Amino acid sequence: MGFEPSDRAQDLIGRVQSFLRTEIEPAEPELHSAIRASGDPWQPQPIMKDLQAKAREAGLWNLFLPLAEPGNEQYGEGLSNLDYAPIAELTGRSFIAPYVFNCNAPDTGNMEVLLRYGNDEQRKRWLEPLLDGTIRSAFCMTEPDVASSDATNMEATAVVDGDDVVLNGRKWWSTGVGHPDCRLLIFMGLTDPEAHRYARHTMVLVPRDAPGVKVERLLPTMSRYDEPYGHGEVSFTEVRVPTANILVGPGRAFEIAQGRLGPGRVHHCMRLIGLAEKALELALQRGTSRTAFGKPLVNLGGNRERIAEARIAINQARLLVLQTAYLLDTQGLAGALSEVSQIKVAVPRMAQDVVDMAIQLHGGGGLSDDFPLAAAWTSARALRLADGPDEVHRGVVARIELASYLSAAVAQETK
Amino acid sequence: MGFEPSDRAQDLIGRVQSFLRTEIEPAEPELHSAIRASGDPWQPQPIMKDLQAKAREAGLWNLFLPLAEPGNEQYGEGLSNLDYAPIAELTGRSFIAPYVFNCNAPDTGNMEVLLRYGNDEQRKRWLEPLLDGTIRSAFCMTEPDVASSDATNMEATAVVDGDDVVLNGRKWWSTGVGHPDCRLLIFMGLTDPEAHRYARHTMVLVPRDAPGVKVERLLPTMSRYDEPYGHGEVSFTEVRVPTANILVGPGRAFEIAQGRLGPGRVHHCMRLIGLAEKALELALQRGTSRTAFGKPLVNLGGNRERIAEARIAINQARLLVLQTAYLLDTQGLAGALSEVSQIKVAVPRMAQDVVDMAIQLHGGGGLSDDFPLAAAWTSARALRLADGPDEVHRGVVARIELASYLSAAVAQETK
Amino acid sequence: MGFEPSDRAQDLIGRVQSFLRTEIEPAEPELHSAIRASGDPWQPQPIMKDLQAKAREAGLWNLFLPLAEPGNEQYGEGLSNLDYAPIAELTGRSFIAPYVFNCNAPDTGNMEVLLRYGNDEQRKRWLEPLLDGTIRSAFCMTEPDVASSDATNMEATAVVDGDDVVLNGRKWWSTGVGHPDCRLLIFMGLTDPEAHRYARHTMVLVPRDAPGVKVERLLPTMSRYDEPYGHGEVSFTEVRVPTANILVGPGRAFEIAQGRLGPGRVHHCMRLIGLAEKALELALQRGTSRTAFGKPLVNLGGNRERIAEARIAINQARLLVLQTAYLLDTQGLAGALSEVSQIKVAVPRMAQDVVDMAIQLHGGGGLSDDFPLAAAWTSARALRLADGPDEVHRGVVARIELASYLSAAVAQETK
Amino acid sequence: MGFEPSDRAQDLIGRVQSFLRTEIEPAEPELHSAIRASGDPWQPQPIMKDLQAKAREAGLWNLFLPLAEPGNEQYGEGLSNLDYAPIAELTGRSFIAPYVFNCNAPDTGNMEVLLRYGNDEQRKRWLEPLLDGTIRSAFCMTEPDVASSDATNMEATAVVDGDDVVLNGRKWWSTGVGHPDCRLLIFMGLTDPEAHRYARHTMVLVPRDAPGVKVERLLPTMSRYDEPYGHGEVSFTEVRVPTANILVGPGRAFEIAQGRLGPGRVHHCMRLIGLAEKALELALQRGTSRTAFGKPLVNLGGNRERIAEARIAINQARLLVLQTAYLLDTQGLAGALSEVSQIKVAVPRMAQDVVDMAIQLHGGGGLSDDFPLAAAWTSARALRLADGPDEVHRGVVARIELASYLSAAVAQETK
Repeated sequence: MGFEPSDRAQDLIGRVQSFLRTEIEPAEPELHSAIRASGDPWQPQPIMKDLQAKAREAGLWNLFLPLAEPGNEQYGEGLSNLDYAPIAELTGRSFIAPYVFNCNAPDTGNMEVLLRYGNDEQRKRWLEPLLDGTIRSAFCMTEPDVASSDATNMEATAVVDGDDVVLNGRKWWSTGVGHPDCRLLIFMGLTDPEAHRYARHTMVLVPRDAPGVKVERLLPTMSRYDEPYGHGEVSFTEVRVPTANILVGPGRAFEIAQGRLGPGRVHHCMRLIGLAEKALELALQRGTSRTAFGKPLVNLGGNRERIAEARIAINQARLLVLQTAYLLDTQGLAGALSEVSQIKVAVPRMAQDVVDMAIQLHGGGGLSDDFPLAAAWTSARALRLADGPDEVHRGVVARIELASYLSAAVAQETK
Repeated sequence: MGFEPSDRAQDLIGRVQSFLRTEIEPAEPELHSAIRASGDPWQPQPIMKDLQAKAREAGLWNLFLPLAEPGNEQYGEGLSNLDYAPIAELTGRSFIAPYVFNCNAPDTGNMEVLLRYGNDEQRKRWLEPLLDGTIRSAFCMTEPDVASSDATNMEATAVVDGDDVVLNGRKWWSTGVGHPDCRLLIFMGLTDPEAHRYARHTMVLVPRDAPGVKVERLLPTMSRYDEPYGHGEVSFTEVRVPTANILVGPGRAFEIAQGRLGPGRVHHCMRLIGLAEKALELALQRGTSRTAFGKPLVNLGGNRERIAEARIAINQARLLVLQTAYLLDTQGLAGALSEVSQIKVAVPRMAQDVVDMAIQLHGGGGLSDDFPLAAAWTSARALRLADGPDEVHRGVVARIELASYLSAAVAQETK
Repeated sequence: MGFEPSDRAQDLIGRVQSFLRTEIEPAEPELHSAIRASGDPWQPQPIMKDLQAKAREAGLWNLFLPLAEPGNEQYGEGLSNLDYAPIAELTGRSFIAPYVFNCNAPDTGNMEVLLRYGNDEQRKRWLEPLLDGTIRSAFCMTEPDVASSDATNMEATAVVDGDDVVLNGRKWWSTGVGHPDCRLLIFMGLTDPEAHRYARHTMVLVPRDAPGVKVERLLPTMSRYDEPYGHGEVSFTEVRVPTANILVGPGRAFEIAQGRLGPGRVHHCMRLIGLAEKALELALQRGTSRTAFGKPLVNLGGNRERIAEARIAINQARLLVLQTAYLLDTQGLAGALSEVSQIKVAVPRMAQDVVDMAIQLHGGGGLSDDFPLAAAWTSARALRLADGPDEVHRGVVARIELASYLSAAVAQETK
Repeated sequence: MGFEPSDRAQDLIGRVQSFLRTEIEPAEPELHSAIRASGDPWQPQPIMKDLQAKAREAGLWNLFLPLAEPGNEQYGEGLSNLDYAPIAELTGRSFIAPYVFNCNAPDTGNMEVLLRYGNDEQRKRWLEPLLDGTIRSAFCMTEPDVASSDATNMEATAVVDGDDVVLNGRKWWSTGVGHPDCRLLIFMGLTDPEAHRYARHTMVLVPRDAPGVKVERLLPTMSRYDEPYGHGEVSFTEVRVPTANILVGPGRAFEIAQGRLGPGRVHHCMRLIGLAEKALELALQRGTSRTAFGKPLVNLGGNRERIAEARIAINQARLLVLQTAYLLDTQGLAGALSEVSQIKVAVPRMAQDVVDMAIQLHGGGGLSDDFPLAAAWTSARALRLADGPDEVHRGVVARIELASYLSAAVAQETK
């Protein structure tokens, strides 16, 4: 009863916690020193691969993998969403943990795409090295020239030309494209402008080094570049790949994007719960260890009330994430459509607010990089736009809520 | 897994739903007509007793009763908190349902007190007719002259004098005291001002007709009198009852109040979830059936976004209530102390906000009594003060959160 | 410089303050006793007329009157909006003051309508006794059967039939119609459904006792009836009045409504500033005079921060009201269109929030009628709907903000 | 009447507007290109000095200078706060404008300190080159090791030793210390720990190149370094300067800090109004020029309502800033103490919220540096901590509000 994890998950949770405490937390300052010493934050540090090796050896590897569906058995058994949730939450407490456990976006989403929509050859070539951690990948969907919150707006083209598909256009916010291990781009392009609006676009697997692919620049998110992964603006100029690189088939991009973004959004939310818990812990530590006007900070003004509100907000958000995971497990994405959008609205906002409170309790230090709060704030804020802005997700929730009230015709007209 | 109700609860939920639809909802307009016709809202309407009889016959009676503890077996088996939650939620959709099912505050809380803290004689005399629905009761704790959010402030006295205990003082917000069936008052009074601050007060069972008990007036809550129950200001002047009427013993009032208010708060929150769902339904109905500026109201401005936020808020609040119920069931009140205060803060506020949104979508009608929204708003608003103001409950949540951070000494000093 | 009142206004402010302190405040408990004693709150109390007589004698009468426009000189000189603002604010501190000074809604709005749009005969018959305080009036616009936030929705009819105009339909929220002195209804009805949407309706002066006028019931606003004025649901059945009772001419209702509602909204906002100040004062008094957990309430938790926020909110709202008044004085309604809607959104919400905070600091007492807070809350809340819901006013502000960005064509399409 | 600027100010406003349009706005992209080309953002670009020269020539130089007080006449006449407000607002629309007009923090605050508290020699040496723009300065007050929101916490020392004063300790958030023109640090240190808590600290003028002064590192604010000015962590090790460098006298630091921070806070708020206006403009441009789901973004969901709320919030905040300026002009800092804290709470929060809304309407682009929104957000957020955190300013507002309610003794006890 309740959302208690299974025995298997309980065991993994304990081991992840312990790995975080004994391996990852001690490595973080070392990592930051190494980056500062190198003078080039875009250069991946060897310590990251070492940590990956240790995590893999400890059996804490690819835990994000969903429960095997028929035909996927060779890629392992996976965990239910409900079992993965507390593990993902733990990884959200550290900016490097998701990578260390090979559970980081966008690679997890891309692996899921390959697992669910790739054919054997595609899986062999791309999924296996991704699961192995030897390569990284990026997802190229959002475009600078159109409002990408409406995915039917995408203008970059993927035109089938004999045995090839030819890609042209410009994408941005292609996360991970700055990493030297990035080998695969999943590109979404317009194939048939005359088709139904959800059947116009195609998803294509593109080698990072295909001629015509150029990373024009790396974009800061609220001033952070998230090195060494980075968020790229990428131009595609007459990029030609075989049609064998098309996922499922021409015009199937929406179906794949939907299947990809659902779990991805849930994973983001799971991690944000951990991020918010971490921020609250930092607030409690700072608030009890610093003194002003003769009292510990927590005992000044409304600080205790704000701490209580943070606890209430985190708990409510976590439960909604768990409920969503439970629905995904028991009813599939179709049965959790509203809930996925609900957490996508509620959780980043909650995390942003809790982090903001923690920053405020830290004073000037909270704005600096002496604490992980500025970075945490950016993570939460960016997720109010990434994978669909809040406004679009509220629209989804409302549409489902209204479905039985508005007649189909009216609903159609007003969408 | 998850918060699915047990089979027994599932069956009861279905029957309560059906009873609401077939018996209670049709009776509500009839009841309002009868009240208007009588010209005296303080006069209980016979239809209420009829509905109670039907509910009892349908086996939908005293469902609030907690799982039997040793020694209480004769009062039935009860439901777990988690099983009762969705039932209480359903009763929250109607202002008369809790009474019809004999599950209304403050009688449920008083029955629980008698069940847990009463001796056989006290139970026989008061609990049995309460369970039977033949009498009603009130709880006399809050006082007009002191800030009652701090219960140690209570100044009314309960002085032991030989075989009697003598009560003096003034209480208010004694809910239910206006009902002609009210026979029992549970009175909290100061017995030993020199004792530890949590051992000074005593809880006493007082017959409503004891000499010296006077209902000075009935108080409106945000202009509503909640007839025929009412909220009374009650004076106690040299009220003398035998010491056998003391619950547990002199100085034990805090322990009893804590035990009483915990489940009471949870029940209130369960019902408020239903109230908020009802308000959202009304908003959806109105918003889809009325037109302005050429569109259904829901399609104007931010209305859809507000509906989505209401759904998100209700779902999060419900899950926190269910989690609290689950903790109460598995770890007792001590293990759910923070959560009880968390829901006491989160749920009335959520309900108030959802109802406010629904009122706004109803226009002027939403302010009138043509819809149950004005009354619903008052219920939610009052519960931000009743059973402890939000500020006190946030203090409880913060204290628990801080316990491991602030040393005991510091915590003591700053409380 | 700044918003300092003129010398004339400064003098009036002092006298109104003094009248409030010496005449009105002492009369309020007396009035409440008289109402309780009478047992009939719908019966106006003689003390009200006495206070009116005193106010008139003190020269504090009809201060709302706008500066004379050509042709209106006989009705006095009036004050600028900026000069009236602090006076109206003072009257907002008491529920009876606006009536005492003959400055209460809806009579002021109706008097302005007659002043600006009435002809000499209409003014003689209706405006003079209204200015004299011998009669009261109501405004019959909102309808129960349509979303009245879109005034073009109004379905009640005003059909010209020879020398008569015949009225049919049902109105509600006709404030003041419950008062025995109410003699005049201003009725808005559909005359020509084929005309441009802003030229279909007509405004007609209707004697309260015209055959076919029936007050069907009096409506509570969040459970308050606002006796002895009341808010009526009024049916009009073949009500026949001479066309001489039409204001300006058939089809001119929108123009008149706009001219009426602009200043009315501003007056409401001015009074709400006073109401919020009063609530803050009560909060400060209660918060410093009651003790819990060993401290004055204001020194617990976030109470001081909430008081600071109330002060900040009131000051900002007042300045926006004064700025709106200043614009009205210097640029007319056309130059203050956005600002009138801005304050209509900002001020009732601010007042509602400040009153809510004050209620919370009062504990249970704040919900009762022992303090004017429950009534104050209702006033503020009702004004988020009355004279146009917040959502409509936000729409007006946005439309004006967007005017230079969206081409006229696009703006049209999207309205 | 109202807050209309004087003729002199009106003229300056027009010229500043024109200079912004013709000189500064066109220079901004050029500047950014030059910085990118140089590869070293800490290297000041020559174009900045060119713009300064042009501004000076145009008579738009040192406009922040307050009205001359007796003895300061040689430093020009200055503007009233009310006249400077709309000019400062305009400069807040551009990140480089304040520097171009020699009106940027912290130099303006430091110049005011020298103007009001410096002696002739101190002014000659430091004030004149600052007014000339030939040197820059920093203010060294906040410390990393203590909660600096309580200024009495400052632990760095300033010990008088014969004709010298010896400084030791560590400061951070010393803004401007990264600029190569920085020549002066104003240092606040503890001199007499036994004195009254507001008479313990001393303010000392320290040459940037004094032995023992070391910039340990430059701190990011929410990931931005604000090159080439920077925010430094600065260590002072046995720094020895003549006592002639003490401002006013030992133990006078609080008086000076108060005098410095008051106007500084007001200037920050004035500029934030301009920043928020700029953000709203960008939101309107983006919202009307991009399309999703077949409509301009502004016509989707609640976007218009959010735009209206931004307009309302900006207008209210601006009026409170103007009112504060007016009070400063007419009653001095003592008469505006509450208002200065009020705007310090209200304005950065408002600006942060408006910028957040604008970011959301820009989608991913809003997070990048393609728009000035990410930087604007950081400016606003940082000012919720800089110059006193919101919580402290709410405390000031509440204390003033409560002064007449709580007896002096009680107020003392609870501070």
